[in-house]
Amino acid sequence: MNLTSKQFYLRQRPLSKPTAEDVSLREVEISELGVGELLIKNEFFSIDPAIRGWMRDEPSYMPPIELNAAIRSSTVGTVVESNHPDYQAGDIVYGLNAWEQYSVSNGFFLNKIPVGDKHPRHYYLSVFGAVGLTAYFGITDAAKLKPGETLLMSAAAGAVGSLGGQIAKSMGCKVVGLAGSDEKCRWITESLGFDAAINYKQHSGNLVEAIAQACPDGVDVFFDNVGGEILDAALLNINDRARIVFCGAISTYNASEPVPGPYNWWQILAKGATVQGFLVSNYLDQFEEGARVMAKLLDSGEISFKDEIVVGFEHTLDVFLKLFDGSNKGKLILQL
Amino acid sequence: MNLTSKQFYLRQRPLSKPTAEDVSLREVEISELGVGELLIKNEFFSIDPAIRGWMRDEPSYMPPIELNAAIRSSTVGTVVESNHPDYQAGDIVYGLNAWEQYSVSNGFFLNKIPVGDKHPRHYYLSVFGAVGLTAYFGITDAAKLKPGETLLMSAAAGAVGSLGGQIAKSMGCKVVGLAGSDEKCRWITESLGFDAAINYKQHSGNLVEAIAQACPDGVDVFFDNVGGEILDAALLNINDRARIVFCGAISTYNASEPVPGPYNWWQILAKGATVQGFLVSNYLDQFEEGARVMAKLLDSGEISFKDEIVVGFEHTLDVFLKLFDGSNKGKLILQL
Repeated sequence: MNLTSKQFYLRQRPLSKPTAEDVSLREVEISELGVGELLIKNEFFSIDPAIRGWMRDEPSYMPPIELNAAIRSSTVGTVVESNHPDYQAGDIVYGLNAWEQYSVSNGFFLNKIPVGDKHPRHYYLSVFGAVGLTAYFGITDAAKLKPGETLLMSAAAGAVGSLGGQIAKSMGCKVVGLAGSDEKCRWITESLGFDAAINYKQHSGNLVEAIAQACPDGVDVFFDNVGGEILDAALLNINDRARIVFCGAISTYNASEPVPGPYNWWQILAKGATVQGFLVSNYLDQFEEGARVMAKLLDSGEISFKDEIVVGFEHTLDVFLKLFDGSNKGKLILQL
Repeated sequence: MNLTSKQFYLRQRPLSKPTAEDVSLREVEISELGVGELLIKNEFFSIDPAIRGWMRDEPSYMPPIELNAAIRSSTVGTVVESNHPDYQAGDIVYGLNAWEQYSVSNGFFLNKIPVGDKHPRHYYLSVFGAVGLTAYFGITDAAKLKPGETLLMSAAAGAVGSLGGQIAKSMGCKVVGLAGSDEKCRWITESLGFDAAINYKQHSGNLVEAIAQACPDGVDVFFDNVGGEILDAALLNINDRARIVFCGAISTYNASEPVPGPYNWWQILAKGATVQGFLVSNYLDQFEEGARVMAKLLDSGEISFKDEIVVGFEHTLDVFLKLFDGSNKGKLILQL
């Protein structure tokens, strides 16, 4: 094999918000495949806030991206060549690879897209992939949400939040979303069916009251992707035995100094509440089942979603940086 | 009825550590009992860190003690007179009353000590009361502790901690305790059977490593009564899917400014861990059953405990203030 592949790699760890200085582009040679390895031609990259977390040199649910290593990302692609017994050339696969034209995989954290699936392939980076299944298992399993309860969702116009809220609506729950612009608030209420939305930027200083007004029966489940002040305001509105699904903390990912946990930590005890740290990787063996349920909800029109697709490998980094300026709605995907 | 009763009342809210200025003594007249009320002559007061929490004017699991109101406390006493259908003069009762010679109760949060119980009455303020049952339901229910797992207990020489650790030992777990003196550490290992103890005061700055050394297989359950730095150090040692029982946060009770939650909050997500806010009041309907199990464990010698009893109503406040200087072991009880 005589193949070169462009890849984005971690040049230095971001000190706060990632910049174009932190990630560089280079060309690498791909040598012969080892036993059990396969070569994937990538077609789509998933652009996620989680990638910012992996750039941090701290203990977490996955090892950090090493300095000088390719940027880890979920991708969809086609198998070009395989020494792996379960894969053959032509298979369409999705899994954890990197921002590079070609990835060499040993099959770890890799799945095949079923032959005959009529949905666009990139859905396996959003509604049928880790993002959609985070929403699905987060709401149906971790949150222990029951029909009639009130769900408060942060980053409600984001990829996970917009899907999670709709799943909760399909279960017969009251769903209130927090988002950062009036346009996003309109989108989740008018197009996605949320019962109410709060533009948290307009309620800085009285967010506790704004949530109380939107959730007159209190909050039974708070599904949190944001952390910080939003989490603190939510904690002052939870009901007895509330569940908090701790799914992300994007407000803290770019912090250059240690960030404290919620100031209203005591409310967890005061309400006999549960905080459930959520890792979709704990549901790997149920991914196929989850994707089937999501396909049903999607095909029946009970949920809708929007992928924001940017075309052009060279734009990968710019699209990632855009994640942190709060402008995107739904899932960001890069098409090579 | 023409009865006067001395009582301690909240003169002002403590700004940080409670002082003798915050609580005063007075004499009150007790008038006729209303319908459904009973009069209790108190014999023992429970002196708990939780009382400090109730002095704070903040939303919590119970309303705060009002300014000028008697100091709320668990007590044991004898019914002197009753207009309540379930109680009659001579019954021995325990429940939530106040630091006063006589309490008028409507039966809320009140239980009878079974006739014929041979154990000392004050056990119903410790091993058979809220303290012992916090340990019991916290370990057996909230912690979801399984035989063979490692339990880390903070305030391990305290009333709840010393009992909780022994219950876990009786279940076949490895139990490591954190305490604030070598004497306490010796007591919990040599007398109570803990596998190891860490004097956290000697490990300021390297507590993370000290816990790692004492828990080479990591921490499956952290039962926390303390919060602050100890919680942060524990969070860096938890295993995947660990459970944190959030039972108290004595390190923060005297804070005069808002105290942040744990800096290592992210570890809850990173490990897919669960934080369970624990309120023993959620188990009120299982108190009798819990007390029976604790009596069995006690009578068979599987657990032991020590009440520290101080005699003399007038010492109530001094004994309470002692709670916050870290000198007591086991449960503090005031005998009138």
